[in-house]
Amino acid sequence: MNSMPVCATEARPAPCLNRRPKAILIDLAGVLHVGEYPLPGAVEALSTLRAAGLPLRFLTNTTRSPRDRLVAQLQGMGLPVAAGEIQTAVHAAIQRVRQLGLHPHYLVHSGITGEVGTSHPQPDVVVLGDVGPELSFDALNHAFRLLMQGLPLIAMARNRYFQESDGVTLDMGALVAALEFGSGVTAEVVGKPAPPFFLGALAELCVAPGDAVLIGDDLRDDIGGAQAVHIPGVLVRTGKYRPQDERDDGIVPTAIVDDFAAAVRLLLALPP
Amino acid sequence: MNSMPVCATEARPAPCLNRRPKAILIDLAGVLHVGEYPLPGAVEALSTLRAAGLPLRFLTNTTRSPRDRLVAQLQGMGLPVAAGEIQTAVHAAIQRVRQLGLHPHYLVHSGITGEVGTSHPQPDVVVLGDVGPELSFDALNHAFRLLMQGLPLIAMARNRYFQESDGVTLDMGALVAALEFGSGVTAEVVGKPAPPFFLGALAELCVAPGDAVLIGDDLRDDIGGAQAVHIPGVLVRTGKYRPQDERDDGIVPTAIVDDFAAAVRLLLALPP
Repeated sequence: MNSMPVCATEARPAPCLNRRPKAILIDLAGVLHVGEYPLPGAVEALSTLRAAGLPLRFLTNTTRSPRDRLVAQLQGMGLPVAAGEIQTAVHAAIQRVRQLGLHPHYLVHSGITGEVGTSHPQPDVVVLGDVGPELSFDALNHAFRLLMQGLPLIAMARNRYFQESDGVTLDMGALVAALEFGSGVTAEVVGKPAPPFFLGALAELCVAPGDAVLIGDDLRDDIGGAQAVHIPGVLVRTGKYRPQDERDDGIVPTAIVDDFAAAVRLLLALPP
Repeated sequence: MNSMPVCATEARPAPCLNRRPKAILIDLAGVLHVGEYPLPGAVEALSTLRAAGLPLRFLTNTTRSPRDRLVAQLQGMGLPVAAGEIQTAVHAAIQRVRQLGLHPHYLVHSGITGEVGTSHPQPDVVVLGDVGPELSFDALNHAFRLLMQGLPLIAMARNRYFQESDGVTLDMGALVAALEFGSGVTAEVVGKPAPPFFLGALAELCVAPGDAVLIGDDLRDDIGGAQAVHIPGVLVRTGKYRPQDERDDGIVPTAIVDDFAAAVRLLLALPP
């Protein structure tokens, strides 16, 4: 460990990290856990981070479970996280729909129906989540037909895939691509990497983007999204990380470390 | 009716039609029929065309039914078409796989399993058809995982949607988009609008592209595909046709007529 500033040296500069951050944004799946299992060292590292007294926000594009169940799952893995510390793409969609005064048709996983509510009989927007194994052609085609009638599309996320304990799994970005291709409608994405998703979390903590840091395993949606709004991004080599992420032409993380524990060591080694 | 040359006058010129064609390529769904119903005047117009003695080929990207069932369905609607006159995207995929010496994993509708055969236990290519209502997340995710292992993707078609009797329906192009987005692999499409699909049909008839014509309802995959290999395209205002097709910046059909019957009248009015 050293306390030198951490700053990418590539042609396209990443935001600098030269002081201990005032808030840490942490992606959940692939960083703290994979499926039902905490990643090695994650429980202890989270505990160390808590002891350092830094404000934390956990950001997730997972849209198959309500926030309460995420909290319970994390606690079951020894990862204590309060509901109020988690910002979900589901919640971002609910906020966006309210802000626009719209009445959604929901194509979402049944697990979050209680959180979002039921579809409106005369919808004026299609809201898409990760239906996962509940995917059916009829439901997809119904959403497609609404888009062909001119309804806009709000997508909770556009992730390509995520890591499950038995392998990588196709994420909801594939359904966004399917509906966009069929209908010609372009989705508004409200979860990561949408700028309001990151900035909203920091606004709650009254921390400026340059004073925060994000730890994530998704080069495009975590690191790219955070750095687009000047939040330094630390990429971990766990979850959906692939070696080619380190050779990407477009997105250069501020730092790349082996796992969440290494990220915590790096951040706590920086001068206050 | 007149016998003046038919030739689009827009900035991007469409191929000219100044003589009666020596062969006619005809799209099936949306041109001759919609679902189980022949389009008005189609039965009589096909009969008129047969009487004129012009060689015909019927091209279809439909990949939910084997060719024999298509023939039976068409005959049941009063549209007599011989199996040897139909060129399907399913058959194009079978030919392409043989040509490359590959061993496919098939993600296709159960209706064509008898035609394509079963999936290989150690596949080296993923072949995608329109699974339609049989779509399941597990099957889609399995194909995705094979692509992530480096297998190439052959798609029978990339159509956006087609017209059914109860409305427009999402076509298999949406699944191609989903798998391409998730995996980063680009599909090779073997049905319309792939050039070999059109040129193969004409080669069988020993007719040059400029001496043939295509009648279709899909601006992009029928008209655009044919005209890319210099076959004049006649767009019909039936099936998936939408008024905005007549204002497209990229594809200008050689002619646009109300329906198949009008297309036949136009073609038979041209000088020999």
